[in-house]
Amino acid sequence: MSNVTMEQLVSLCKRRGFIYQSSEIYGGLSGAWDYGPMGVELKNNIRDYWWHHMTRLQDNILGLDAAIMMHPKVWEASGHVESFTDPLVDCRSCQSRFRADQVDLESPCPVCGKQGTFTEPRDFNLMFSTHLGSVKDASSIVYLRPETAQGIFVNFKNVMQTSRVKIPFGIAQIGKAFRNEVTTKSFIFRTCEFEQLEMQFFVKPGDEDTWFEYWKENRIGYYRKLGIRPDKLRFEEHGPDELAHYAKAAFDIEYEFPMGWQELEGIHSRTDFDLGRHQEYSGKDLQYLDPETNERYIPYVVETSAGLTRTVLMVLADAYEEEELENGESRTVMKFHPSLAPVKAGIFPLVKKDGLPDIAHSIEEKLKERYAVFYDQSGAIGRRYRRMDEIGTPFAVTVDYQTKEDDTVTLRYRDSMEQKRVKISELEAVIDGEIRAYARDK
Amino acid sequence: MSNVTMEQLVSLCKRRGFIYQSSEIYGGLSGAWDYGPMGVELKNNIRDYWWHHMTRLQDNILGLDAAIMMHPKVWEASGHVESFTDPLVDCRSCQSRFRADQVDLESPCPVCGKQGTFTEPRDFNLMFSTHLGSVKDASSIVYLRPETAQGIFVNFKNVMQTSRVKIPFGIAQIGKAFRNEVTTKSFIFRTCEFEQLEMQFFVKPGDEDTWFEYWKENRIGYYRKLGIRPDKLRFEEHGPDELAHYAKAAFDIEYEFPMGWQELEGIHSRTDFDLGRHQEYSGKDLQYLDPETNERYIPYVVETSAGLTRTVLMVLADAYEEEELENGESRTVMKFHPSLAPVKAGIFPLVKKDGLPDIAHSIEEKLKERYAVFYDQSGAIGRRYRRMDEIGTPFAVTVDYQTKEDDTVTLRYRDSMEQKRVKISELEAVIDGEIRAYARDK
Repeated sequence: MSNVTMEQLVSLCKRRGFIYQSSEIYGGLSGAWDYGPMGVELKNNIRDYWWHHMTRLQDNILGLDAAIMMHPKVWEASGHVESFTDPLVDCRSCQSRFRADQVDLESPCPVCGKQGTFTEPRDFNLMFSTHLGSVKDASSIVYLRPETAQGIFVNFKNVMQTSRVKIPFGIAQIGKAFRNEVTTKSFIFRTCEFEQLEMQFFVKPGDEDTWFEYWKENRIGYYRKLGIRPDKLRFEEHGPDELAHYAKAAFDIEYEFPMGWQELEGIHSRTDFDLGRHQEYSGKDLQYLDPETNERYIPYVVETSAGLTRTVLMVLADAYEEEELENGESRTVMKFHPSLAPVKAGIFPLVKKDGLPDIAHSIEEKLKERYAVFYDQSGAIGRRYRRMDEIGTPFAVTVDYQTKEDDTVTLRYRDSMEQKRVKISELEAVIDGEIRAYARDK
Repeated sequence: MSNVTMEQLVSLCKRRGFIYQSSEIYGGLSGAWDYGPMGVELKNNIRDYWWHHMTRLQDNILGLDAAIMMHPKVWEASGHVESFTDPLVDCRSCQSRFRADQVDLESPCPVCGKQGTFTEPRDFNLMFSTHLGSVKDASSIVYLRPETAQGIFVNFKNVMQTSRVKIPFGIAQIGKAFRNEVTTKSFIFRTCEFEQLEMQFFVKPGDEDTWFEYWKENRIGYYRKLGIRPDKLRFEEHGPDELAHYAKAAFDIEYEFPMGWQELEGIHSRTDFDLGRHQEYSGKDLQYLDPETNERYIPYVVETSAGLTRTVLMVLADAYEEEELENGESRTVMKFHPSLAPVKAGIFPLVKKDGLPDIAHSIEEKLKERYAVFYDQSGAIGRRYRRMDEIGTPFAVTVDYQTKEDDTVTLRYRDSMEQKRVKISELEAVIDGEIRAYARDK
């Protein structure tokens, strides 16, 4: 088992329609990527898996989908207008721009090599701004949200009042966020436009440590259940000087990406900072009335904040394997969990004649109501299997001459490459069972 | 059957957690809306139904998810920088601003009532712009896409080369688009931030009229299959002077919303305008090579372009009914197609004791893997049914004392309010069958 390089990933993603450079025919847009036919299915499957896990399987977590553009006061209350900044320096000689914390101001400019050319660092706000309405002045500024979390805090009262929920409860949201990152890097890992999977869990003050531990365990368990290699996952605690202004405690779940260990998800104990600030800035009462004790309080928040786009990168990197086969050939295979695989089953007639395509098409018609399937009748069967391996299709169904005699097909497994005969009428039940029982051999 | 008013809809949407005003605690943001716990499930179900219909059930349609921010040249090629404008006039007296095509320039200002105060109309571009990177000048301008379609055209070559598809084929995409509308109105019908369900179908020049007819029929059939009242759907053809610059023919599918007949979806014969322009502006060859005839050509495009957010409004309006009951009471019931309903089944123990909650919870545990379900044990059973009616839950499962004797529960139907006894072990199969067979009585 080899560790995949970023170059291998980028190449496979382009070749097999997972991820393309955005606006590629125009030379690309820095740090922006588009998801192709396989990529959008993979990303949607990860999105749906998270939503299912968080809102369906958990008790007391409700969904939300707030708009990207919010009232500008939201970002004053949250602290983003004032302090969501990076310190930047320019090289006076070549005009290159750097994050001050990423260059040594005493050293020569990394681009032109001149010494002593850096300006003083100054704050640069990472929020994208635009103007709502036809007048461009300070009063019409709106921001593209730099995080989805504030949409949840601002709707806390509405959700509480219209959904008959009691503390503790959570609100989950999936959506795009935007940060004007000076340094985009590592393929889809850090981009200006990205998607977040966020959940804010509202608890009684005093209960936050218990729930913080609960969510740490729940979230690492989630990745293990997805079949992610356990030796590539770890917790990293934020030290006291690394904590964000709103946080009492914070752990990152890190994954060992091709470029090293990096944050995949953060679990944050956010106290009552956000709701308290919104209560202050809006003048609205955001307290919770405990129906049993009649206490009123601003709930504390434990947050789980994951990146959808960087989860896609992790799933791609974790799935990638190159294997030497017994016949001396090699194959690239993406060992996705079947729940995440863009295509669940390839359906192949062994040959393009003698009625085999008709049988294969009838199986396709039946299965496509339930699964994303791919019908393919061209080329040698071995090459068709290889293509399915490269897009991570867990099952291949082959219709051959025996099918005409006994209504069985060959079911071929991506990981083991083993094959067995299955009755057409039992195909759906067999595939269902295999998806449920899947455990990757690592 | 009564026609719902917009006020009734807005009120129910707030009360039952479908849709809230965005940033409501800060007084709201004009024309922006947030989807609450019921709204996000309804919107996601519509989104998934469309995706399933377009990419799974259709042959030869692939998915895509392009970034919202694209290279600015895209919008020069598409014509949006030059001509995606509204003509605006100001009142010189009160500074109010209007779309010139919506006021009579000879009349008094509708706001201050003064005569002869309007400025000359001038063009106002509807694209939101922002700056990518830390320098704010003309070279750093990027736009928020005003439509998702261009993301498909720009990726046409990549999809074609990496997906082994032959003409005719389509590319489908769901995503947000942004238009700086001067007049937002009609609840979620026209908003600055909205979601599109778009599909571009690439055909051989000469075949476009056949495919245009195909997609017209397919798309109206889609809405009928969803159970939308047929007398509230109609086609409206664009006359020669209404056609967009890129269009050869265009039909709208209109729905009779509470505010009148309005466009729900457009079916457009876009010729080779878009790919031709992108070929010209990018200098890249965007022709298709026909593998059988060896002809090279720029494909023609037939587009189906629907609004997800306005489909949500249609589904809400279409589902709304107020009914007088035999006992003299009335009920509000949302008769959603079960595939779209935010919650599929309510699960209720008749009383909070004697082990009935345990049985109900065990049913909840089993069903929640498959469906969004809602457990509720508080209040009279009739009131619990009413709450389910208001959020459009098609089935209610009630556990009572007979359950302890014979393992049956009451299955109550939202539309007819009829009840029947079903074995717990058969519940899933019965609900599956009912969802498949559902046909609304109108």
